[in-house]
Amino acid sequence: MDVITTRELKEQLASLQGQSVTLQGWIRNHRKQKNMGFIDFFDGTCFRNPQVVYDNNVPGFDDIQALHVGSAVTVTGKVVPSYKDPETPEIQAESIVLEGDCPEDYPLQPKRHTVEFLREIAYLRPRTRLFQAVFRVRSVAAMAIHTYFQDRGYVYVHTPLITGNDAEGAGNTFTVTTLPAGSKADPSEDFFGKPTSLAVTGQLEGETFAMAFSKIYTFGPTFRAENSNTKTHAAEFWMIEPEIAFCDLDQLMDIEEDFLKAIVKTVMEKCPDELKFLDQFTGGGLIAKLEGLLSSTCARVTHDEAISILRKAMENGTEFKFEPKFGEDTAKEHEKYLTEEYFHSPVFVYDWPKDIKAFYMYQNDDGKTVSAVDLLVPGAGERMGGSQRETRLEKLEGRMDELGISKEEMYWYVNLRRFGGCTHSGFGMGFERLLIYLTGVDNIRDVIPYARTPQNCEF
Amino acid sequence: MDVITTRELKEQLASLQGQSVTLQGWIRNHRKQKNMGFIDFFDGTCFRNPQVVYDNNVPGFDDIQALHVGSAVTVTGKVVPSYKDPETPEIQAESIVLEGDCPEDYPLQPKRHTVEFLREIAYLRPRTRLFQAVFRVRSVAAMAIHTYFQDRGYVYVHTPLITGNDAEGAGNTFTVTTLPAGSKADPSEDFFGKPTSLAVTGQLEGETFAMAFSKIYTFGPTFRAENSNTKTHAAEFWMIEPEIAFCDLDQLMDIEEDFLKAIVKTVMEKCPDELKFLDQFTGGGLIAKLEGLLSSTCARVTHDEAISILRKAMENGTEFKFEPKFGEDTAKEHEKYLTEEYFHSPVFVYDWPKDIKAFYMYQNDDGKTVSAVDLLVPGAGERMGGSQRETRLEKLEGRMDELGISKEEMYWYVNLRRFGGCTHSGFGMGFERLLIYLTGVDNIRDVIPYARTPQNCEF
Repeated sequence: MDVITTRELKEQLASLQGQSVTLQGWIRNHRKQKNMGFIDFFDGTCFRNPQVVYDNNVPGFDDIQALHVGSAVTVTGKVVPSYKDPETPEIQAESIVLEGDCPEDYPLQPKRHTVEFLREIAYLRPRTRLFQAVFRVRSVAAMAIHTYFQDRGYVYVHTPLITGNDAEGAGNTFTVTTLPAGSKADPSEDFFGKPTSLAVTGQLEGETFAMAFSKIYTFGPTFRAENSNTKTHAAEFWMIEPEIAFCDLDQLMDIEEDFLKAIVKTVMEKCPDELKFLDQFTGGGLIAKLEGLLSSTCARVTHDEAISILRKAMENGTEFKFEPKFGEDTAKEHEKYLTEEYFHSPVFVYDWPKDIKAFYMYQNDDGKTVSAVDLLVPGAGERMGGSQRETRLEKLEGRMDELGISKEEMYWYVNLRRFGGCTHSGFGMGFERLLIYLTGVDNIRDVIPYARTPQNCEF
Repeated sequence: MDVITTRELKEQLASLQGQSVTLQGWIRNHRKQKNMGFIDFFDGTCFRNPQVVYDNNVPGFDDIQALHVGSAVTVTGKVVPSYKDPETPEIQAESIVLEGDCPEDYPLQPKRHTVEFLREIAYLRPRTRLFQAVFRVRSVAAMAIHTYFQDRGYVYVHTPLITGNDAEGAGNTFTVTTLPAGSKADPSEDFFGKPTSLAVTGQLEGETFAMAFSKIYTFGPTFRAENSNTKTHAAEFWMIEPEIAFCDLDQLMDIEEDFLKAIVKTVMEKCPDELKFLDQFTGGGLIAKLEGLLSSTCARVTHDEAISILRKAMENGTEFKFEPKFGEDTAKEHEKYLTEEYFHSPVFVYDWPKDIKAFYMYQNDDGKTVSAVDLLVPGAGERMGGSQRETRLEKLEGRMDELGISKEEMYWYVNLRRFGGCTHSGFGMGFERLLIYLTGVDNIRDVIPYARTPQNCEF
């Protein structure tokens, strides 16, 4: 018995017409009539699920009619033209064998469940159409990211997750320890002989590899112990952090734009059925939004220019809850205005006030700004943050001193500026925030298999 | 100025002959003669590095002669036939511009350093030929793994790293907490409202996705707080854990064999220069070993049969430090004998004594063994461990009771057997152990960018 997947069935639908095939998967819905029945069948390899039709000539007809939603089955039958839709495969069953039963109290009944309820049964939700779409997009997008970088000669680097550095994100990190809870033992008695925490970024280690391989990227988990219960915050999430040697801020923007469009394009090509479903599920506009991104060119403005635009808008009657101010951070409403009202395109905002940005960013000649860039996207806000790195030893050290970051502890990072340093730049993108953009699903809890948020670490 | 990478230079070497190109990278070695000089140049995108030749017609000849090893430079020059080797590009320099200087106390001088010394300067070692080879193989192998699974319809799943489960690996886990060191606070006051630790596997969560997508894989970091200072143990490492629905132990072995050969084949195709270097560096035999794997078929024996073979060998005079015994684990020397002396091929040993294997493995009818399988590889030992999973509810619950694993806490895992369960199997492979096999480098510390081991969490 040669089993094929529903993906193979769909891909070879024309040539399989009239042939007998065997499929293995699950019953999503089961409608019964007196002498026949219809099974919505899925095996998770394809979003376009076949319908299995059986009649009372099939052996064990009564047992088959008794099959529950959720059960695992092996179906053998003939591929026949579908009366519904030529692209949806239909199987005229010759045999249906129960592989694993499912009781009637199965929580996933064929009706619309709320996403809140589905979060409570997160171990079953991948079987729903919504999460079949979301988690396949997640997988396809992850692969698209790897393919993008590998095709362009970037080396994939696994930066460490457990770290002894506390240069970034102090106060928002998880402690990692093997000391018993409440132990008064000295950190020197801990597993690593010192205090350690979960990394909030792989960038600094990534830079050490960019100074050897020119183009590298990381793609791994990152952790923030932020007590934020919002739709966009999770304590554990995945990040992509490319770092490119001999690359300045302008070139970085070119790369960011090309990268984002390439990922969107690949997902649109590989997941058309999933996106169509998500477009409908999330109220429409998803596909138009993604197509809009592909056809637009990202605008580029300095932070000062952006503030000027916002202030002029305010003078002309646009109401903002927060006043846009030179030298200060922008709010979500400002990002929305810039992308959706003013430019009608994604916008790179660069040359940010140095006081609200990180120590490692290149200090511009004005003494006030750094060569940082945020990419703002219509319908999403900020999706990528990058910068040209400060490569001048005395400038970097000066900034570290100002901010009280230990040059001694970070000697290896500082030394990259002593030992053959060069202009280099990189950006970071939170993978889940990209997925929120790609799927239209608006809560980070629904684009991660098992979300970790304050007071929540289930499964 | 259009800059090309050394990879592009090598790929287009024939068509670029006689053309002027610009490269950016670093000086690995610099040999000077009276009226000319030779620079071993690298940018990390290609293992086959060009040689840059300059003479005293180049502007700033004296400054160029003073360039230090380790410096970053921009080189423009004509591609000329190499007198050394037709495949190694040579550049006749027209200009060489210093991008970033490197002092004479640069630790990486052009001589052979010990791997122990290089571990101390792990932030610089990616610039050496050894680690250029190792970390490119790492990146290429990671991509080969993604490509293998994605091409075959597997969905990539990010299982959580922070977990509240302690079903597996109790006692060997790192605690994750935001409570201050020494705090007597109740775990309910911790970030997640309960005790949490770093995951030792993603398999159990992976199974929940296999029951929805049929074929899934994980590829992410895993943690063990084992106080083992050996060449093969690290506290943080990457694991690949595929899980396949409607797949039994025999089919799993087919997949494992196909998978391993595919990865080896891809790395051999994509990294010929790196492997040639590593073969020489590690004393020879690496490429022959990998070729041997590709041309062999994996033998398949039960654990009982394996012990019989080993005991017969012992009776015939083979000396083992540990006596091979029925019902017990095998030692490295036994694995070596089976693969290198007896079968001369990789060997699947299956049907292991249940008492030395995990609770979730399928219990065979003999009441003594489980459908587990280890793949032993010549020159490496065990590289993959897998099993058919116990899918019968009462058998699984019985085993959990015997081992004191809470069915209540793991209700979601148990429920997979209630809600449309089916025969399914999966395996786990430590990525670094694969890399030890692929590179011939024998210490796990040298195949991870920044190794975490007891008392060591630097960079």
